[in-house]
Amino acid sequence: MSAKMKQLLVDVHTHIYLPRYAEVLRSRSNVPRIFRRPTVQGGTEERLLILDNEPSGGRPVGSQYWDRQEKLNFMDKHGIDVSIVSSANPWIDFLSPEEAALLATDLNNDLEAYCALGPSLKVDPTRQRLYGFGLLPLVPGIESSVLLKTVKQVAELPHLRGVIMGTVGIGRGLDDEALEPVWSAIADTGLVIFLHPHYGVDGKAFGEKNNGHVLPLALGFPFETTIAVTRLILSGVFDRHPTLRLLLAHSGGALAQLSSRLASCIAHDPVVADRLEHDARYYLGKIYYDAVAYGPEELSFVSEVISRSKGYASLKASAKDSAGHVNRTTGSKRMLFGTDHPFFPPLNETDKWKSVMENLEAIDGVHGWTEEDKEGVRGLNALELFDL
Amino acid sequence: MSAKMKQLLVDVHTHIYLPRYAEVLRSRSNVPRIFRRPTVQGGTEERLLILDNEPSGGRPVGSQYWDRQEKLNFMDKHGIDVSIVSSANPWIDFLSPEEAALLATDLNNDLEAYCALGPSLKVDPTRQRLYGFGLLPLVPGIESSVLLKTVKQVAELPHLRGVIMGTVGIGRGLDDEALEPVWSAIADTGLVIFLHPHYGVDGKAFGEKNNGHVLPLALGFPFETTIAVTRLILSGVFDRHPTLRLLLAHSGGALAQLSSRLASCIAHDPVVADRLEHDARYYLGKIYYDAVAYGPEELSFVSEVISRSKGYASLKASAKDSAGHVNRTTGSKRMLFGTDHPFFPPLNETDKWKSVMENLEAIDGVHGWTEEDKEGVRGLNALELFDL
Repeated sequence: MSAKMKQLLVDVHTHIYLPRYAEVLRSRSNVPRIFRRPTVQGGTEERLLILDNEPSGGRPVGSQYWDRQEKLNFMDKHGIDVSIVSSANPWIDFLSPEEAALLATDLNNDLEAYCALGPSLKVDPTRQRLYGFGLLPLVPGIESSVLLKTVKQVAELPHLRGVIMGTVGIGRGLDDEALEPVWSAIADTGLVIFLHPHYGVDGKAFGEKNNGHVLPLALGFPFETTIAVTRLILSGVFDRHPTLRLLLAHSGGALAQLSSRLASCIAHDPVVADRLEHDARYYLGKIYYDAVAYGPEELSFVSEVISRSKGYASLKASAKDSAGHVNRTTGSKRMLFGTDHPFFPPLNETDKWKSVMENLEAIDGVHGWTEEDKEGVRGLNALELFDL
Repeated sequence: MSAKMKQLLVDVHTHIYLPRYAEVLRSRSNVPRIFRRPTVQGGTEERLLILDNEPSGGRPVGSQYWDRQEKLNFMDKHGIDVSIVSSANPWIDFLSPEEAALLATDLNNDLEAYCALGPSLKVDPTRQRLYGFGLLPLVPGIESSVLLKTVKQVAELPHLRGVIMGTVGIGRGLDDEALEPVWSAIADTGLVIFLHPHYGVDGKAFGEKNNGHVLPLALGFPFETTIAVTRLILSGVFDRHPTLRLLLAHSGGALAQLSSRLASCIAHDPVVADRLEHDARYYLGKIYYDAVAYGPEELSFVSEVISRSKGYASLKASAKDSAGHVNRTTGSKRMLFGTDHPFFPPLNETDKWKSVMENLEAIDGVHGWTEEDKEGVRGLNALELFDL
């Protein structure tokens, strides 16, 4: 592989509200919605409300959310060669089954066009700069056949390489038996599932102080992801679908830090332990993690926890069995750079986004990752996972 | 210091339902309660219900919850020399202010007697084997003066060295301004606050599958602790009370893994950033953590995150500033062995409790901790923190 190829920077966590979707948000009077309000300067601005009880009248929203050129400008500013773009939360969760099925299909076609009609890579014109995660109409009451048809649609659209998914499934979470055919179909296609939070946890836990968006974003989002993937583990989805490829947003939230506690709680609860094939920590090595954790120690730790998973194939494993498995290189292979663009914009217009630089510095700062491991996290792992 | 002293094993996370408290639970018809039911063998047994919607009719409860000799037997079985015993959740949260004030005072006196009348250490008769965390009547409607009087009571009882506390404060969480005099008083006395979860997060997030106690215990508990300590950080309590000594249950839950994300979210939210003196990661180095995380990589990571905190004194710090601060020894000084006894009993009667052995093996397995660091976590850090 040439030196040039090695230096590709690939962003696997980058969002869009496709123009068709933004129109839907503008037509709504409930969250999620886009509304227009006067500015102090005497003009008007569009603002986005996506969370319940969101403070400060939501956040400003503009062309960076829907315009392809803005995405490319952002990529160029940060040296990002390729982006795997996904619709931003809350996707189409709020629609009826009929509306959701229709809109998912249309948005998948829109995203295919968005990618296909975008530029190719200068250094390698056989590759595009934009690929995408499609959407499934995961809403209560949807027919399984419609979901499977949409999986097929996404798999056949050449620039879509996965599906982004929230945590509610068709209303009862991702540990719902009704989703079994969906996991099978996705595993068969090789599409990557990007699991992403939206709902957080019940906001009453965050109290009444004005802490802006900090608590729901910094804690609620990762907690939601952690619960969802833990429920997947407990339901045996990874035992039944060992080839499923799941990518977790925000480096898996708190999954890594709570995984030994999880294993211990399972071991003390025969109702759960008896139905799993492996120690909970084993499954963490079957999953992929974006590298959106903002600190090098966090990334180091996640890579350790992936690396140690081999030692936990047995339900009777103990900490001693992970000894010797804890290098950080093995784990690095399952971690992939991301930005969360266009969220977390800089407070002041500057050359580079702080949120992006933090994640790049974090990768660079991991002790125990070789330069090759870092190149993997920055791009090569994504090229391989998404078969780009 | 003699070799013998160096080998003391001190358990800072070990619970009791004092007999007076168990009587209160027996008198109740709502959770929390202790009730009696027939066994399949034709006898009867007492069972404990402490969580809302608890599955499986709660858990068996017996003398290991209230009998001092049982605590000492457990300590002897595992080589634990000293225990700092605390009332188990949900403490006295469910009482009226008058009842809570009275019961807290009585339970503090009971716990003092429980410790004082227990044995002293054979190797050092000037030290007892049992010390305690007292209780404050933290319930809605309580007068601040009553709380301060109880802080004084605990501080004056010679074997009580701290207070255990849930996360609800007097009804509005721990970031409630009304608690300012309490933090001042506790900081002045040098008592250690042991912050412990009980309520978890809204159980709807855990879905409808039968996963036993796994999700609320493995995830809900640590999430609750993480939210509570984050709200303390955001409220500036550590800026206003820099000498406050706070010990977090379960190694701080998910605080360490989400701390760089927290710092990044704060940096993007001026409403919060402007009122804090330091980067969020700085405060993690001002806190103490039990070593109840069940895995060596988790303990390693928490110790790294404590160690790196020095680099984040400035709000403008970046990942680069933590470079050179990440050794694990500094962090180990703020971590302390615990067992969570009498919770997580072994499924089969065996010599040793799996939950205890896991936490001892985890300490032993931390790469980057010297034997001296490990001795610190096993006992010396506690001797110092609690001035034993």
